[in-house]
Amino acid sequence: MTDHPPATTPDRRPGGRTARIRAQVLDAVRAELTEGGHEGLTMEGVATRAGVHRATVYRRWRDVGGLLVDVIDAAGEMDWQPPDTGSLRGDLTALNQEIQDSLVVQPSFAVALMAASFHSEQAARAQKKLWADRYAQCEVLVHRAVERGELPSRHTDAHSLLTAATAPVYHQLVLLRADPDPQLPERSAAAAVLAAAAGAFSDLREERA
Amino acid sequence: MTDHPPATTPDRRPGGRTARIRAQVLDAVRAELTEGGHEGLTMEGVATRAGVHRATVYRRWRDVGGLLVDVIDAAGEMDWQPPDTGSLRGDLTALNQEIQDSLVVQPSFAVALMAASFHSEQAARAQKKLWADRYAQCEVLVHRAVERGELPSRHTDAHSLLTAATAPVYHQLVLLRADPDPQLPERSAAAAVLAAAAGAFSDLREERA
Repeated sequence: MTDHPPATTPDRRPGGRTARIRAQVLDAVRAELTEGGHEGLTMEGVATRAGVHRATVYRRWRDVGGLLVDVIDAAGEMDWQPPDTGSLRGDLTALNQEIQDSLVVQPSFAVALMAASFHSEQAARAQKKLWADRYAQCEVLVHRAVERGELPSRHTDAHSLLTAATAPVYHQLVLLRADPDPQLPERSAAAAVLAAAAGAFSDLREERA
Repeated sequence: MTDHPPATTPDRRPGGRTARIRAQVLDAVRAELTEGGHEGLTMEGVATRAGVHRATVYRRWRDVGGLLVDVIDAAGEMDWQPPDTGSLRGDLTALNQEIQDSLVVQPSFAVALMAASFHSEQAARAQKKLWADRYAQCEVLVHRAVERGELPSRHTDAHSLLTAATAPVYHQLVLLRADPDPQLPERSAAAAVLAAAAGAFSDLREERA
């Protein structure tokens, strides 16, 4: 845990051999998953594409479930920041646009990951944690809106508001498989803000307290 | 196409042998899919469970994709009616409760079908059509609400409102894999009604026309 590890331990410092191999393997997992889906993901295919010994891949990731979990964990380690546009409606629109883009791109890594999570309990757990972390990170959008006076009270349940704003984008594209609607990110954001302003997401637990 | 087919053609009348075999096979598909998921679904397993000759199953359904499409089509043939409680909020709450129940039951046929649709293009197309039909059927809830004067104008886009009301239930349970929240059906319905009352789902196409 120092900033400057001695040059004699290259395998352990960030960016050293261990980290390089992980980056190569996870890049390969993303590519294989995006191109061939969960069914096409094999330890051998990943090792070959990554240019890493099969034995190394088996030792460090054990099985396909292990690869899925690590690629999801790696997404959680990304330095992602929620949008900050100056208004709640703007922030939620930008967030929805980012979500829509990730689902509409062909082929979509995000969709491949969701599909995989239906078939791997390990991947499902990792993805559940990633979703929870991302939604928790986004709660700041609601807190900022309350501070700016855009929402009626401090009792807005941030998670409910965020779910209401973003769920229609996922629902239309992932489950209903509708054609992408360029207006949906903005309209869904606007609807959630109107509902919030009307008190739809008041936090009943806090009000009772 | 007569109401009373001659008794000498039992194989072709509704409820005859053909229909009975289809019912047995589709019951078996539902059971196998619910218990074992898409990966566990085989022509042999279905034939055995249904007590129907394998050759018959192959001839009529060809492959697992054919079974999935027919079980989805059969869901669409069900005499399902959207709720009619006397208020939009009540109708959407009842609809969301029905959705939540279908997703929460263990094991869930609805979730197994969604998972299968990620892995079969045929099943995905059939499910897309089923979703579209069900949402179209539900538009009557919005029309009734307009007639009762619960919504501000005739220009409410029914599909957008229905998606906003129902998407959070699917999102929480299917993708976020959150624990079921008994209040969510009602709160999500209420939020959509508040947003609609504030004009969030005004149909821009109609307004432009």
